[in-house]
Amino acid sequence: MKATKDTSLAERFAEVRDATMKLIEPLEIEDFIIQSHEDVSPAKWHIAHTTWFFERMILKEFKSDYQEFNPAFDFLFNSYYNTIGPYQPRHQRGVLSRPTVGQVIEYRKYIDEQILELLSETTDSNMKKKVKDLIGMGIQHEQQHQELILMDIKYNFFVNPLFPTYAQMEKHSVSKRDETQFVEFKGGLVEIGHDGNGFAFDNESPRHKVWIEPFKLATSPVTNREYLEFIKADGYEQPEYWLSDGWSVVKEQNWKAPLYWLKGQEENWEIFTLAGIQDLELDEPVSHVSFYEADAFSRWKGKRLATEAEWEYASQSVAIHGNTMDEGVYHPVASNSDSESESLSKMFGDVWEWTASAYASYPGSKPLEGALGEYNAKFMCNQMILRGGSCATPLDHIRETYRNFFPPEKRWQFSGFRLAEDQN
Amino acid sequence: MKATKDTSLAERFAEVRDATMKLIEPLEIEDFIIQSHEDVSPAKWHIAHTTWFFERMILKEFKSDYQEFNPAFDFLFNSYYNTIGPYQPRHQRGVLSRPTVGQVIEYRKYIDEQILELLSETTDSNMKKKVKDLIGMGIQHEQQHQELILMDIKYNFFVNPLFPTYAQMEKHSVSKRDETQFVEFKGGLVEIGHDGNGFAFDNESPRHKVWIEPFKLATSPVTNREYLEFIKADGYEQPEYWLSDGWSVVKEQNWKAPLYWLKGQEENWEIFTLAGIQDLELDEPVSHVSFYEADAFSRWKGKRLATEAEWEYASQSVAIHGNTMDEGVYHPVASNSDSESESLSKMFGDVWEWTASAYASYPGSKPLEGALGEYNAKFMCNQMILRGGSCATPLDHIRETYRNFFPPEKRWQFSGFRLAEDQN
Amino acid sequence: MKATKDTSLAERFAEVRDATMKLIEPLEIEDFIIQSHEDVSPAKWHIAHTTWFFERMILKEFKSDYQEFNPAFDFLFNSYYNTIGPYQPRHQRGVLSRPTVGQVIEYRKYIDEQILELLSETTDSNMKKKVKDLIGMGIQHEQQHQELILMDIKYNFFVNPLFPTYAQMEKHSVSKRDETQFVEFKGGLVEIGHDGNGFAFDNESPRHKVWIEPFKLATSPVTNREYLEFIKADGYEQPEYWLSDGWSVVKEQNWKAPLYWLKGQEENWEIFTLAGIQDLELDEPVSHVSFYEADAFSRWKGKRLATEAEWEYASQSVAIHGNTMDEGVYHPVASNSDSESESLSKMFGDVWEWTASAYASYPGSKPLEGALGEYNAKFMCNQMILRGGSCATPLDHIRETYRNFFPPEKRWQFSGFRLAEDQN
Amino acid sequence: MKATKDTSLAERFAEVRDATMKLIEPLEIEDFIIQSHEDVSPAKWHIAHTTWFFERMILKEFKSDYQEFNPAFDFLFNSYYNTIGPYQPRHQRGVLSRPTVGQVIEYRKYIDEQILELLSETTDSNMKKKVKDLIGMGIQHEQQHQELILMDIKYNFFVNPLFPTYAQMEKHSVSKRDETQFVEFKGGLVEIGHDGNGFAFDNESPRHKVWIEPFKLATSPVTNREYLEFIKADGYEQPEYWLSDGWSVVKEQNWKAPLYWLKGQEENWEIFTLAGIQDLELDEPVSHVSFYEADAFSRWKGKRLATEAEWEYASQSVAIHGNTMDEGVYHPVASNSDSESESLSKMFGDVWEWTASAYASYPGSKPLEGALGEYNAKFMCNQMILRGGSCATPLDHIRETYRNFFPPEKRWQFSGFRLAEDQN
Ligand SMILES: [Fe+3]
Ligand SMILES: [Fe+3]
Ligand SMILES: [Fe+3]
Ligand SMILES: [Fe+3]
Repeated sequence: MKATKDTSLAERFAEVRDATMKLIEPLEIEDFIIQSHEDVSPAKWHIAHTTWFFERMILKEFKSDYQEFNPAFDFLFNSYYNTIGPYQPRHQRGVLSRPTVGQVIEYRKYIDEQILELLSETTDSNMKKKVKDLIGMGIQHEQQHQELILMDIKYNFFVNPLFPTYAQMEKHSVSKRDETQFVEFKGGLVEIGHDGNGFAFDNESPRHKVWIEPFKLATSPVTNREYLEFIKADGYEQPEYWLSDGWSVVKEQNWKAPLYWLKGQEENWEIFTLAGIQDLELDEPVSHVSFYEADAFSRWKGKRLATEAEWEYASQSVAIHGNTMDEGVYHPVASNSDSESESLSKMFGDVWEWTASAYASYPGSKPLEGALGEYNAKFMCNQMILRGGSCATPLDHIRETYRNFFPPEKRWQFSGFRLAEDQN
Repeated sequence: MKATKDTSLAERFAEVRDATMKLIEPLEIEDFIIQSHEDVSPAKWHIAHTTWFFERMILKEFKSDYQEFNPAFDFLFNSYYNTIGPYQPRHQRGVLSRPTVGQVIEYRKYIDEQILELLSETTDSNMKKKVKDLIGMGIQHEQQHQELILMDIKYNFFVNPLFPTYAQMEKHSVSKRDETQFVEFKGGLVEIGHDGNGFAFDNESPRHKVWIEPFKLATSPVTNREYLEFIKADGYEQPEYWLSDGWSVVKEQNWKAPLYWLKGQEENWEIFTLAGIQDLELDEPVSHVSFYEADAFSRWKGKRLATEAEWEYASQSVAIHGNTMDEGVYHPVASNSDSESESLSKMFGDVWEWTASAYASYPGSKPLEGALGEYNAKFMCNQMILRGGSCATPLDHIRETYRNFFPPEKRWQFSGFRLAEDQN
Repeated sequence: MKATKDTSLAERFAEVRDATMKLIEPLEIEDFIIQSHEDVSPAKWHIAHTTWFFERMILKEFKSDYQEFNPAFDFLFNSYYNTIGPYQPRHQRGVLSRPTVGQVIEYRKYIDEQILELLSETTDSNMKKKVKDLIGMGIQHEQQHQELILMDIKYNFFVNPLFPTYAQMEKHSVSKRDETQFVEFKGGLVEIGHDGNGFAFDNESPRHKVWIEPFKLATSPVTNREYLEFIKADGYEQPEYWLSDGWSVVKEQNWKAPLYWLKGQEENWEIFTLAGIQDLELDEPVSHVSFYEADAFSRWKGKRLATEAEWEYASQSVAIHGNTMDEGVYHPVASNSDSESESLSKMFGDVWEWTASAYASYPGSKPLEGALGEYNAKFMCNQMILRGGSCATPLDHIRETYRNFFPPEKRWQFSGFRLAEDQN
Repeated sequence: MKATKDTSLAERFAEVRDATMKLIEPLEIEDFIIQSHEDVSPAKWHIAHTTWFFERMILKEFKSDYQEFNPAFDFLFNSYYNTIGPYQPRHQRGVLSRPTVGQVIEYRKYIDEQILELLSETTDSNMKKKVKDLIGMGIQHEQQHQELILMDIKYNFFVNPLFPTYAQMEKHSVSKRDETQFVEFKGGLVEIGHDGNGFAFDNESPRHKVWIEPFKLATSPVTNREYLEFIKADGYEQPEYWLSDGWSVVKEQNWKAPLYWLKGQEENWEIFTLAGIQDLELDEPVSHVSFYEADAFSRWKGKRLATEAEWEYASQSVAIHGNTMDEGVYHPVASNSDSESESLSKMFGDVWEWTASAYASYPGSKPLEGALGEYNAKFMCNQMILRGGSCATPLDHIRETYRNFFPPEKRWQFSGFRLAEDQN
């Protein structure tokens, strides 16, 4: 029945919006304001921008008598939609003390009420479909920013010599693994991409044919233990393993290890997490590596990364579950001993997995019209695809067709990788 | 009686520390955190740094059983004392959300108590003199940061499209002036510099002889009205009035007017103040100009800036009073009609006045020993002297021998200027 | 007969080396030295570096008694082979006046003699094969630098207010075209890549299957006439047509038209060529556009760029001929009226054509071993594929499988593009 | 008789112009073109610019029928005269291969003839005086660029791994010195500045009174031997000796020693000179140090630099002679044993001596009118005064009132320093 579905959307809207508010509970007012790196946004900006998204894309378009909360917010909280108008430059989000956090939370409440009112008052079925689709999209958008809030808080806390703690983390039992295991896939003419059932972003469509040669995929992501071997083998000092652009970054930024790895006082490795500084757990998936590091490690190992077609094709037989934001761990964890087997594990959750594929549109794809056409399509250059979601991604936000993307040098996302190789 | 003097120092310490707390009363927590420009520090940093100054320079040196508040604060709140150790880079003061504002205020309370305790418990007269001198210096330092707090809040609010207001400002009655009046000084072999009575910074000593040719000094600082003539005469477009380095800055930063001047909707000029955006008052002293602008205006007028020796020599006959921080206006004001006369006015307060003199040590000067030797001496290069205090300077912080200094391109201080010329 | 083939390689070596010397004949000594942009190398560097390639990759490896010409040349003329050792930074190639041009030409003669001597004296058939393969590669490398010499001279002359002329250019007859014509291709499971017969770079192999949906490809590249429409339609002012990174470059570098387009005195467009400044010929293929511009134009037109698989598949039926370096025109020319038809024209020569494909390795590919492994593979990130050769490419250097690549913002190569679209 | 004096000016003009041509004799064409640092100009630019100075300031103003050589040269060879018009940016002087060196030498010949013709044909005595004054100024300007040619060639050769040699240098006998000797000066109310007899730049006037406290000045400049002690005492690692801006430069540019000092293979110091790399001669004056290094060394020694007034006052009793450009050594030399005495030595020649004085106008000074007003006055900010001339300055270009100036971080000029101290 339609009413049920509406209720369910309203409930889902409220749930996801609440989840964001849960994420910011541990923060002090001061933590909401800072931007410690141009890639990192203040938490205040995230909670305002996701709210603005609902206001600008839905309320201003569809609510007839809508009174906007503050006309300056279009400038302040537009992220990058040039077709909407000018906006506060991204690297300048941390210079604004006003509106206060309190005012932004009022803004959220106001917009939440207005959205629910719009949803209940809309009767025209055509318009209702549009509004509901857009609310669905706004929910997905909100979830993306939930992950970003965790990423950004982590970075903001990391640059502070006091190394603040966001949340406590239980110690997880760990298991030693021996050799990397590989699963064989025979490939051929397969299909990937979204088939149109349920929500997906425009960049996941259409479902289309791809020819894949026989290949093997590792059963689990590369661990800290394995990655440490690369470091010990002077992997960061040997240009032959690195892409040219990657080698430039290694030298310029003096990379010696993944982001958040710290040398302890006795030369042991420690790692900064949202629960503060911890000893490096060797059997956890390595995280916060760039595409360049993933690629260099793979070449050093005589392997390679999977293409996104290979990754998606392989994932089609795997259920979507894992260590996601919902667990509240916010850190990749080692496999249980028992679960170690010859089938794919950890395809979803824990760490986003870099693929060998540059972000590009699928054959026959159609970007959205209007401002939302800027959502994904305009970033299809100089970015690499990651797949599978991470420990900071909401479980119900993950799909096997989901295409995450970052420039190859970025490391503040929860990004790891899994090895692949040709079959002969 | 000695005891009385101690009491008076303790009282003065408390007064000045309280004055800082008064200045931050209008701020929201969010306002304490941001650094909207590398030159501008967060208010939280100022109130912590001035506190650290008392802790590091006095308590750690002289209080035998002193328990430090937080060992990380030496790194976090040292401004630039290399001999003390490494410190948070100046341009990165705005990336730190912790300690919270509340924690910093606790820090202030703790240090205040410790200082007063030290003052009362010290009996050794030699040590007592040292401690009291250093407390005196810390008070002066605190006052310098009071002005900086106002400068920095103003800049932080200016970059925000919401243009927040720090304080209300009463409208001041104004009076039109006609021609610039000049007072003649005959010069000769005169003396300037501090004579050793009362507090002065090391850079003000020793008192020394200087030969000055006969000169004239304007009775009042250049006004917005006069400066507007320069703008209308395309002064910002004509390289012949500008120093070479100044012209580069004009082009690079696209200067068209003083900092904080804004073109209104009808092409009229407005000005951003700590009371928000106001119409430009033509008879106020022009403020927030760089040395380059002061110099270019002077050349355009066929005049020049005074040297610091000329300025100080001229000021020796003038009583120290004026529109200072104590007035709570925080903005330069026009002269009263009545006070317009043929003698020097507004030498103190309103705006710091750029001089033609580069900052250098006085003949025979001796910088302080230890870390405090870094207080002034190491900045004696690429900076120009300003004299007289401003509307953001505490009245009892101003001296006729006081040497303020800024790089020639800086404009966020309350800086104006006064014309001078040779006598024939 | 084997001897014949050796002779032929020696002759081909001499021919290609001579062709380089022909290209530099019009230059003054002064023209050999400058580097007017970090991407642009001095002609002296090119003629030394191509020589060094033969010395380092062949003579030092295979000639037993080889006496090197100058030990400093390994540092000075290595382009980017990290496995060989450190080298003069790329952006600093223009700060070196020595060795003189005369000395570099002596170096060329010495190496030419040594290579021919090695070729004739080598008897071991295994080694002879290796040497001959490497000489073949060196020849291909030399030809790549012939195109670079023309590109770099053009840029070096362009920045000079005297606009020097490199060579005279005959006027070519031109023909007006009406609408863009498209040819249909049905696609399916096709093969692309090099099949192993004749020379190819490692990045062209292996030949492999690719699934292609039905598509259409324009019969000819986009012309200046068509591109001018985009400019007149304010294409450079409308962010909705541009990739996000492209829009940033447009704003930062203030792009208003392709590189080398100049506004004449009467607002007409002129174009700088190797024959000096000319009136813009509307029916010539547009050239010196970035990938971003090609992509934005396509989106504005409602079309897209072809993938490299589509391009290569379409080109398989076309003979390799066209306006190449051998013609000595060094500028793209308009089609002859007669040749205008419904089949593909100008696939080879005139302008390199941007594709929609990021540069990546082919499935199952194996990079070369040793230093030559750096030749291509390490650039497989942040670069886009161009196909077909240009008016500055030697004809016998062009292959249908040839993969040229440049970062998406570069424009100093002779780069244009051709429209494609889906079939329904 | 007047005619004689004219002849003598013509002869002097020819002599100085010839001296420039002598300086460039050792250069290859390639050496004329490069600009290895933004501060360094190509030799071709120097010989063209000095010629342009005569053309633009004299011929275009005073020669009625003057035909200009090439209208583009006003743009190409204007150095910094904004009132004349736009010009090729300073840091882009090395990207221009044309005009060729041969064409610039033709330009010189043409202008030389025209100047001599103007001088002989001018009869109006008023105009003749102006022309002769300007030719005198042009001669001084030419001599300044002679020194710059040597400075710039030295830097250009230094960045080349081949370390080319400009000229042979005879070994000079050297003598060990013991302790730094000081000469006492009683100071008082003295006069400095140019008195109007003979040529002087506008910045040397007027002669004026200055009060000087009693001081001491070292008999000779600081030597490499003394400076090496500073290096060995970790002077470059200790912030307490450095000005704040200087310390920033030390860290950013990783200074460990003066420019042109090189660590040899056995950890001994070598030094690059215009005669190539040499062992460091300990008794030569240290050269190619910045003001910051001179200042830091002085503070480390417990001494200071002299003010320019002290320096000039002290120099008034010393004859102008020394190791200047005329000697053809182009490198500072050690004192003869015999000449070592208790009087001032090496005040002129060898190395320019940094003073403690910022470059500023003298009281009552009047800059020149018109474009030549830009010659000196617009640089009076952020620069420090050097006195005395160097081994690269023509002897007859040196005056005791001569004020050279450079930004405090520059080191490519032949700059050393001499210690001073207060008398009690
Ligand atoms: Fe967003
Ligand atoms: Fe301070
Ligand atoms: Fe090459
Ligand atoms: Fe000059």
